[in-house]
Amino acid sequence: MTDLPVAQVLERVDANLDASLERLIDLLRIPSVSTDPAFKEHVQRAAQWLADELAGLGFEAAVRPAAGHPMVVAHHPGPGGPGGADVPHLLYYGHYDVQPADPLELWNSPPFEPVLVDAERGKRIVARGAVDDKGQVMTWVEAFRAWRDVHGTLPCRVTVLLEGEEECGSPSLDPFIKANVEELKADACIVCDTGMWDVDQPAITYSLRGMVYQEVILRGPSRDLHSGMYGGVVVNPLNLLARIIGELHDAKGRIQIPHFYDDVIPVGANEKAQWEALGFDEAEYLGGVGLKVPGGEQGYGALERQWARPTCDVNGILGGYTGAGGKTVIASEAMAKISCRLVPDQDPAAIAANFRKFVTDRLPEGYTAEFSDIGGSPAIRVPTDSPYLAAARQGLADVFGREPHLIGTGGSIPAVGSIRKYLGVDSILLGFGLDDDRVHSPNEKFELVCLHNGIRSQAAVLARMAGIAKPKG
Amino acid sequence: MTDLPVAQVLERVDANLDASLERLIDLLRIPSVSTDPAFKEHVQRAAQWLADELAGLGFEAAVRPAAGHPMVVAHHPGPGGPGGADVPHLLYYGHYDVQPADPLELWNSPPFEPVLVDAERGKRIVARGAVDDKGQVMTWVEAFRAWRDVHGTLPCRVTVLLEGEEECGSPSLDPFIKANVEELKADACIVCDTGMWDVDQPAITYSLRGMVYQEVILRGPSRDLHSGMYGGVVVNPLNLLARIIGELHDAKGRIQIPHFYDDVIPVGANEKAQWEALGFDEAEYLGGVGLKVPGGEQGYGALERQWARPTCDVNGILGGYTGAGGKTVIASEAMAKISCRLVPDQDPAAIAANFRKFVTDRLPEGYTAEFSDIGGSPAIRVPTDSPYLAAARQGLADVFGREPHLIGTGGSIPAVGSIRKYLGVDSILLGFGLDDDRVHSPNEKFELVCLHNGIRSQAAVLARMAGIAKPKG
Repeated sequence: MTDLPVAQVLERVDANLDASLERLIDLLRIPSVSTDPAFKEHVQRAAQWLADELAGLGFEAAVRPAAGHPMVVAHHPGPGGPGGADVPHLLYYGHYDVQPADPLELWNSPPFEPVLVDAERGKRIVARGAVDDKGQVMTWVEAFRAWRDVHGTLPCRVTVLLEGEEECGSPSLDPFIKANVEELKADACIVCDTGMWDVDQPAITYSLRGMVYQEVILRGPSRDLHSGMYGGVVVNPLNLLARIIGELHDAKGRIQIPHFYDDVIPVGANEKAQWEALGFDEAEYLGGVGLKVPGGEQGYGALERQWARPTCDVNGILGGYTGAGGKTVIASEAMAKISCRLVPDQDPAAIAANFRKFVTDRLPEGYTAEFSDIGGSPAIRVPTDSPYLAAARQGLADVFGREPHLIGTGGSIPAVGSIRKYLGVDSILLGFGLDDDRVHSPNEKFELVCLHNGIRSQAAVLARMAGIAKPKG
Repeated sequence: MTDLPVAQVLERVDANLDASLERLIDLLRIPSVSTDPAFKEHVQRAAQWLADELAGLGFEAAVRPAAGHPMVVAHHPGPGGPGGADVPHLLYYGHYDVQPADPLELWNSPPFEPVLVDAERGKRIVARGAVDDKGQVMTWVEAFRAWRDVHGTLPCRVTVLLEGEEECGSPSLDPFIKANVEELKADACIVCDTGMWDVDQPAITYSLRGMVYQEVILRGPSRDLHSGMYGGVVVNPLNLLARIIGELHDAKGRIQIPHFYDDVIPVGANEKAQWEALGFDEAEYLGGVGLKVPGGEQGYGALERQWARPTCDVNGILGGYTGAGGKTVIASEAMAKISCRLVPDQDPAAIAANFRKFVTDRLPEGYTAEFSDIGGSPAIRVPTDSPYLAAARQGLADVFGREPHLIGTGGSIPAVGSIRKYLGVDSILLGFGLDDDRVHSPNEKFELVCLHNGIRSQAAVLARMAGIAKPKG
């Protein structure tokens, strides 16, 4: 352990905020859209930008090739130099890629030309990736900088792993981790890709949903047909696909894929009570996106539906004539992208197989369905009783003056599962996003106050981590 | 009546076939896609091309402005000159516009670069519009030419009305007809936009289905949402639209829109027996488009489902992310183009209203549906006992050596209803398309033998029409 003082570090964070913001804006200008091959060079450029920043902070940092987009790996020895002080070794995971920005016409400013906008909570940074995940990654990069500026080093030994494919299912992550186990092993992993409870109330996320994402192309007639000559004579692939999708849920929102709920672990009464005590305002949450009535399964509270119940959502659908005016066509094929959010202990591979069977069981003779796997990962719960999680709670309490809530999230971070599986390391998910940050949507934003408190929190968490008495290896 | 001999006219048709084909190919080179504003100039050019052809045959012909794409109107006085011989006055209706050619990648040759391909029935002309309707229009234009070449005139008085919006719902047709009733009135109307029974068996179509075509844009959340944060919390507009479409039919293919079947006239036993006697091979019809099992309503024969039962087909659907890879988005809106084929006595306006109510009745509070009318027309039956239809039957029998079948069609030709409604004129639908002509599909074609027999038939029908003893006006 070490006890380098944190007060000056926090002052340094405050003094540096404008410069921190400028660096984040530089990074946001790089359109590192990972799912679209047209942006490949920009993805590479974002990786290099981060490697250069980390090298400037005393890390041994490199852009490392992977099967798809590259990884950034960086190492800092901590206060004692190699083999020095007996401090915890922390792995920081994040991603430098972003979601596609479309529909572009709904942005108030170009997605890769960041702007500062005045709003009720002060200034906010508007750009694709502002919060997911570039802004959040920069909370710990800037905390490292403040530590280095004040103390000439970091209070813990640190390894960084940044990937460029989180927004397209992390296909290269597992092979890369498996090939570099010894290099990446650490005592705990810090992931900054989740949210706060609200702008004043920090949170640590301990449960994440998993995901199965499938594309299906349903094919019927050998060619597009005239709806006069064939309407009422053949099964229309678009009507058929819609009907199958409609049958995915019953009238109460329960998913009808066979065995879908077989392995779902119900939420315990204690946990349910804890969540209810959080006082989540469902009407306000829905109202924030212009809605009045809830969706999902009937008979479950909003937080339970979001954190602990599985879903099946259509993310995209396309078929037939979609231009201006009309075309009286029966299209030969139709496509849908469909994803299920999973909860413990659902098995992504089994769910994918059962989904495919659900579709193919509903095809008339001669109709086919071609499936593509777009990604999958199991749901995760991280232990809430480790000294590292306790240190993170203390660090957040130091900055906010109140204990963080322990919450779930409806999203998925496949890396958390991979890091547990291959490195044996548990993650601590502390993040500074807000519900209204428009993640994956037009006009994505990150509040400046969240960036600021995020950097302060990461600095304070490092100090608390460094205070852990580590058993001699 | 007049009795100009037809034998030499038919010889002239045969001798002229190559030149007739060349002219059709010229017309097919003009991409007169009416539904897409980008092709406006080409649509105009096709109209002018036909007006010039008719003027060259002794018609007083003009491209006439209309609300949308222009009309071609042309008049020929017939054998006696103005006020001359007491011959029937025939109105020829057709359309010079074509469907969009997409999906382009499925064409074996560019859709607007016509090619002749050798196949089992001899040569075929492959191009968008080859049969629908440019090839069919040219059967009567070339018949006029042969009559003019041999006899210096036509055996009947002829008025031509060609529109450029048949493939996008004929929005300008009714106003144009209403504004020109006296000019367009005739004894009978010839429409050449339907099919034969098979390549050796001519047919006259006496029943056509009508249509209602609606576009719906369903809107929910005020913006696209992250499927992790909102999946299971909100109603997904894409799932909702699919479910509503799925509910349009029950498990037996019966349409569930309230009052949908209220006005449907069941097919009588005699007519059903006639249709059954035609020996339609459903398995072959389905096999021709790669299918094995029928669609539509259970409990009805294939011809009845195609000619005399209403449908509800999705012609296009679009929503969310449809590019490569995945995006974990819940889209704020989803679009579908949906059309119903109608039968007597369904009212298009009532069906449209009930369809809209069917959709809006299924929307959660706060969700909206915006509808656009893309076209509508009632189903039609033409009388089968008129002297003009008898003359048409004789003309076809003269050429093919066998009586034409009287058949229905599943398609819609709104003009037939408008011509009846505003001019009081019944149509005779004789056409030379085949079931496998790929109408509205990639690689649309017209058999050269059908073009040839079509021109001969139109010439022979003119002679039989001219033989009708017309009561003195």
